[in-house]
Amino acid sequence: MSSHFLSLSHRTRKTHFTKKVIAAGVKAFTVYNHMLLPTVFKSVEEDYHHLKKEVQIWDVSCERQVEISGPDAKKLIQKITPRDLAPLTKTKCFYAPLVNSNGGMINDPIIIMLAEDRYWISISDSDALLWIMGISTGLQLNVSLFEPDVSPLAIQGPKSRTLMKRLFGSKIEKLKFFGVAEFQFLGSNLIISRSGWSKQGGYEIYVNGPKLAETLWDKLFETGYDLNVRAGCPNLIERIEGGLLSYGNDMTLANTPFECGFGKFMPKVVANHCIGAQTLNSNKVRSPSKIIKSLSIDHKERIYCEEPWEIYNIKNEKIGQITSAAYSPDFQKVVALGMINTRSIESEQTMYTSINNKKYTIQIEEKPFI
Amino acid sequence: MSSHFLSLSHRTRKTHFTKKVIAAGVKAFTVYNHMLLPTVFKSVEEDYHHLKKEVQIWDVSCERQVEISGPDAKKLIQKITPRDLAPLTKTKCFYAPLVNSNGGMINDPIIIMLAEDRYWISISDSDALLWIMGISTGLQLNVSLFEPDVSPLAIQGPKSRTLMKRLFGSKIEKLKFFGVAEFQFLGSNLIISRSGWSKQGGYEIYVNGPKLAETLWDKLFETGYDLNVRAGCPNLIERIEGGLLSYGNDMTLANTPFECGFGKFMPKVVANHCIGAQTLNSNKVRSPSKIIKSLSIDHKERIYCEEPWEIYNIKNEKIGQITSAAYSPDFQKVVALGMINTRSIESEQTMYTSINNKKYTIQIEEKPFI
Repeated sequence: MSSHFLSLSHRTRKTHFTKKVIAAGVKAFTVYNHMLLPTVFKSVEEDYHHLKKEVQIWDVSCERQVEISGPDAKKLIQKITPRDLAPLTKTKCFYAPLVNSNGGMINDPIIIMLAEDRYWISISDSDALLWIMGISTGLQLNVSLFEPDVSPLAIQGPKSRTLMKRLFGSKIEKLKFFGVAEFQFLGSNLIISRSGWSKQGGYEIYVNGPKLAETLWDKLFETGYDLNVRAGCPNLIERIEGGLLSYGNDMTLANTPFECGFGKFMPKVVANHCIGAQTLNSNKVRSPSKIIKSLSIDHKERIYCEEPWEIYNIKNEKIGQITSAAYSPDFQKVVALGMINTRSIESEQTMYTSINNKKYTIQIEEKPFI
Repeated sequence: MSSHFLSLSHRTRKTHFTKKVIAAGVKAFTVYNHMLLPTVFKSVEEDYHHLKKEVQIWDVSCERQVEISGPDAKKLIQKITPRDLAPLTKTKCFYAPLVNSNGGMINDPIIIMLAEDRYWISISDSDALLWIMGISTGLQLNVSLFEPDVSPLAIQGPKSRTLMKRLFGSKIEKLKFFGVAEFQFLGSNLIISRSGWSKQGGYEIYVNGPKLAETLWDKLFETGYDLNVRAGCPNLIERIEGGLLSYGNDMTLANTPFECGFGKFMPKVVANHCIGAQTLNSNKVRSPSKIIKSLSIDHKERIYCEEPWEIYNIKNEKIGQITSAAYSPDFQKVVALGMINTRSIESEQTMYTSINNKKYTIQIEEKPFI
């Protein structure tokens, strides 16, 4: 598909970092949660190499928070996710799929506990606020629900720890993977988690309102000058290599967490208070007929998968589809994510896909490439 | 803001008409309901003049349907809209704001009755499916809810009736404003309504699946060749002139239907079964402190309002904001929509806004410009 411009309006919301992102030379955006998300700075490949070697600052304000507070806050959250949140504390955030009563994926957010009766759901690309508000209204729960003006800024890449330590002190080194803590910045408290949508390591800073946004952005660049810090964004190639799923691309409302490979986050028996429990405890859903896999394709050219590519077996039967793909300069082949019939994963000798009317063999990878 | 490219992925869904739209020379898109919506073909101004004189074919597939069927379908719909749907029939569709329990606007769709127990909610830009599914799940209603693959194609402009009559026969002339009927096309039934997001008159054809999409597109162009038919899209200038509100731009979850000027669609007393009834029957909400108005600004240059512009009175107090604005070639001034404090509407002598650091006087228009 040829390139087209994005028309802007208030409906496609800018972020508190958009001016800085433009000044840093952003080349393209996508729209995510009705908000601008940068997708390319120099080129997808150049951004990729830089991310894997250095440190980048990402405007991921589009990962808006849904704030849930009030006496029924925890009850409401346990209604909407099958993950057991009993071990959730203020010092550790949880990746927790949200499901409907059919076990369909509504969103795959990170949940942060601010207090026993106050939470942030840091969402992916669906109006999770409407879903949660609908459930809460239907059940007449006693909660307050809104989208606070909190903008996550991600610091990603192997040098992210060095940069963050310079700005926030050695306390940052104590943060474990998915750890959360409060840090000081110019007299304000900032919540920081050791998380982010890359496999290169990094942090997410939850910036309150517009006040500190540009100052923090500038400070990170000043402090990281000798670390070759750059503005960046979630990188298509790197996230596929790392096996990180994109809501709307690799999974939708039509998929269960088990199909998405999230079985490891599911309790042995989903507690009854979760609205999807009955479905998610059924054998049929627990042994899904298709599952997401990391794939590779022996194809040496730059290519993007704008629409799913079908996967065939040797008899030309459709056995799955590829939902994300990109040429990986490091692995010198196309890396991909796709959902494949579980029966075929074990039984088929050879799997194919067709790119620009040419057949290519697909390999299933045991682990993501990292 | 300078122009930026839109990155495409499966998450930003193409429509069954996208190939045709690209072949017709689309210059820019926006993202609406996670789907591509064309915004410019020749230029916003050229598209505008053409729309007001001729006939255009718009790919508005992004106005996805939420299909609600089952024994509780009507009950569920009356839960989510304050509009009285008792007079709704299969031959007339209704514009019906959806609200939450605070009376906040969730969406402003058109509702089509397919049968007593089957409806389409033809939505604007929010994940209304998640809202409706949340309410239904919370209330444990007996309905089936999904997004069918139905793509509205709008035929808009003064020559739309002529074009539609050629293709669908004189029965099309019997459709009243917001009338709905089934028509035949190549042996298939198509639902057509006399509606659309322009004030130039027109129709919306609800195209089922991909099968007939491109054939119908081509047929409309062949049939309308001598009518100077063109591919078009909702036009920023024309829709502001016509006072048509854009969800996400001119109204959000933070606004009630009364603030949005939808009081005329509200019953004198909203029935108790609507979840927003209590709020919407309160005097405070019925006499809102701010309301949307059609405005004009004495400014002769092409300008777009990407972020709301504040409105001030002579004492420099903020009394409202402009959410949509564009220079109108026909009226030779900037036409706009904005929400203004009701007290100020009556009392202020002069209102201002600031565009590129220059002050401009605002006039409130009694009626939209059409």
